[in-house]
Amino acid sequence: MNKIKNAGICAPLGFSSAGISADIKDNGSDQPDFGVLTSMAPCEAAGVFTKNRVKAAPLIFAMDKLEKGTKINGILVNSGNANACTGKKGLENCRLLTEEAEKILGVDSGTILISSTGVIGEQLPVTKMKVAMRNFPDILAGYDDDFAKAILTTDTCIKRLALLVETEAGAYVIGGVAKGSGMIAPDMATMLSFITTDAMISKNNLQACLKKSVEKSFNSITVDGDMSTNDSVFIFANGMSGININNEKYLEQFQQSLDYLCLELAKMIVMDGEGATKFVEINIKGALNKDEAKRCGMKIANSPLVKTMFFGEDPNWGRLLACIGASFVEMKEDKVEIYFDTLKYVENGLLIDKTLEEEAARIMQKKSFAITINLNIGKAAHTVYTSDLSYDYVKINADYRT
Amino acid sequence: MNKIKNAGICAPLGFSSAGISADIKDNGSDQPDFGVLTSMAPCEAAGVFTKNRVKAAPLIFAMDKLEKGTKINGILVNSGNANACTGKKGLENCRLLTEEAEKILGVDSGTILISSTGVIGEQLPVTKMKVAMRNFPDILAGYDDDFAKAILTTDTCIKRLALLVETEAGAYVIGGVAKGSGMIAPDMATMLSFITTDAMISKNNLQACLKKSVEKSFNSITVDGDMSTNDSVFIFANGMSGININNEKYLEQFQQSLDYLCLELAKMIVMDGEGATKFVEINIKGALNKDEAKRCGMKIANSPLVKTMFFGEDPNWGRLLACIGASFVEMKEDKVEIYFDTLKYVENGLLIDKTLEEEAARIMQKKSFAITINLNIGKAAHTVYTSDLSYDYVKINADYRT
Repeated sequence: MNKIKNAGICAPLGFSSAGISADIKDNGSDQPDFGVLTSMAPCEAAGVFTKNRVKAAPLIFAMDKLEKGTKINGILVNSGNANACTGKKGLENCRLLTEEAEKILGVDSGTILISSTGVIGEQLPVTKMKVAMRNFPDILAGYDDDFAKAILTTDTCIKRLALLVETEAGAYVIGGVAKGSGMIAPDMATMLSFITTDAMISKNNLQACLKKSVEKSFNSITVDGDMSTNDSVFIFANGMSGININNEKYLEQFQQSLDYLCLELAKMIVMDGEGATKFVEINIKGALNKDEAKRCGMKIANSPLVKTMFFGEDPNWGRLLACIGASFVEMKEDKVEIYFDTLKYVENGLLIDKTLEEEAARIMQKKSFAITINLNIGKAAHTVYTSDLSYDYVKINADYRT
Repeated sequence: MNKIKNAGICAPLGFSSAGISADIKDNGSDQPDFGVLTSMAPCEAAGVFTKNRVKAAPLIFAMDKLEKGTKINGILVNSGNANACTGKKGLENCRLLTEEAEKILGVDSGTILISSTGVIGEQLPVTKMKVAMRNFPDILAGYDDDFAKAILTTDTCIKRLALLVETEAGAYVIGGVAKGSGMIAPDMATMLSFITTDAMISKNNLQACLKKSVEKSFNSITVDGDMSTNDSVFIFANGMSGININNEKYLEQFQQSLDYLCLELAKMIVMDGEGATKFVEINIKGALNKDEAKRCGMKIANSPLVKTMFFGEDPNWGRLLACIGASFVEMKEDKVEIYFDTLKYVENGLLIDKTLEEEAARIMQKKSFAITINLNIGKAAHTVYTSDLSYDYVKINADYRT
């Protein structure tokens, strides 16, 4: 990645964003909860969405536009209300809000999308939001915290990264923001990410690259194994850098950059998981195939017993072995190796030496560590990222609505 | 079930049990942690075991004997050490301990089984256990708390029930004890149950009846979605009542009795779930088929977000709908109905009226309530039983070994 650099506060050309309070939760808060991301030039757009059979209205609305290949000028985003389980009225509200935004922003009809996160089962406060969006033209800015803030729910910090990608033809930028905390699970539960680039790329290439990157990043993290109705990753490419990357070499570089961007954003989400005190990387090696490697890693990462063990800083390797067995992947107990960071702890399915416990426990006391499991059955590998399960997770989720 | 009565403290004829402290955890405790269950006459025996690919040594040991059709005279049971992930030595220890027990109890060689629960990855303290079991002949009793106590781990109470089943030919008894707390999950995670009867029944009928009963009871409860290496349900039939039930009518009555016994024991396990403050029955109706009904119920019952919502007593129906969607069962959002006890709360996938929230919350404040979900797609139904997820679950599991 020698030609991919952190772009700092540089944003891709032609994109701007804003965020304000529309008091969507109706609690008088002046925290930003409503944002807009817009491009001066129409964008190729692609998206990856939740696999949940219950999809929120804004996803149905966006998927329809993306399937038709409509060029996109921007997207509205709100927190505080997911517009999920809202029936026909929920979908109608997407239309009303985006039409109003198109007028206010002076862009072509049908070119604005919408994305929502928050409480399920309640209608959006459309009138309030229409009033609030009148401010957008005045506050749009090329680099701005308020958009990143407006999409947060139980998150404790904004998540953002931009990369400068250098080619022989010049440089372009890829930038992204994300939100997600709690319910971060297989297939992107309650996480949103909005990625922009000024590279020139076809819609098909954009969709293919995004799908690959998401699989290895947002779809390989988990906080609690739940899967939301609203999870979405969008990417918008407006081509304003003038650099056409629709060739094998440049596409490869774009894919690498996008992989890196998505993985870094995904890691930020895990680290900000609800009540999380630890960041744990779980590497599965020697699996029969990629699917089994992922399934095994996710089973471990989602196990409440393993997650409370991370919180308790106890190298109770038996729980790991039990989880591997419960994931139903091809395995033989007496072939399994387990490492805590680089410490080889279990060999042939057995603890190597009881005296290693102390060192393993010391590794677990760190804020961030890796567990590597070699099944020694095949050659496939996959890495998943997760957090621990602490008292605070229970507190946050028991109190969420009240 | 007019001919099935609670048998109180009556045990099936010819069975006796005992429990003592063998200090298996090596912490000086005098709590019973080692027990024996034995029959005066050799028993037909059947078992249902964890589906986890990592099976503890005592399961491998018992499955081998049951497959061969060996008549069984009894079973040793210990808590404090699961004898799981213990390799060849673990299996050898099963042999050493049961052989010693056969000598001490004066029964035929190869007729004693063993079952264990507790910490994974440590060898059993064989010598201590051999010494302790010398006491068994003196303390064996027809009705005794110590056996039920000896099998407990994080359980807070013993779980036991006996039924008197009346037939035209006379009455027989079915009795059972169980342990299980935490990790109670699909496919019987860390739960043990030992059922005895003095009915006369063939091994094949016994195995078939047990399998059916377990599916609707122990395999339909969940505390946290994990699946242990040691879960086992055993049934022993010594025929000493003289009542032959190998005919359709009597078998049907036996099945009903066993269904009831297993379900009641399973419910006791959920109510004693780690840190559980609520008992929740989740009825799925109108599913495409039985498998989908169960998968949907289990997905809801295992969702940390739903379980913390039970703890928080908040009728956040959107989380239920999101879980249904995440279970990938055949469903249409706008056909779903949700009830809290008998209160119809959601119709056509939408909250009927915001004013119902208060009543739903009141229902959730009870120690025990039911959620019924009608998918309105097909005719299949299944019920699962679960608990909430409280601060104490995290505490118990973070501190388990330390």
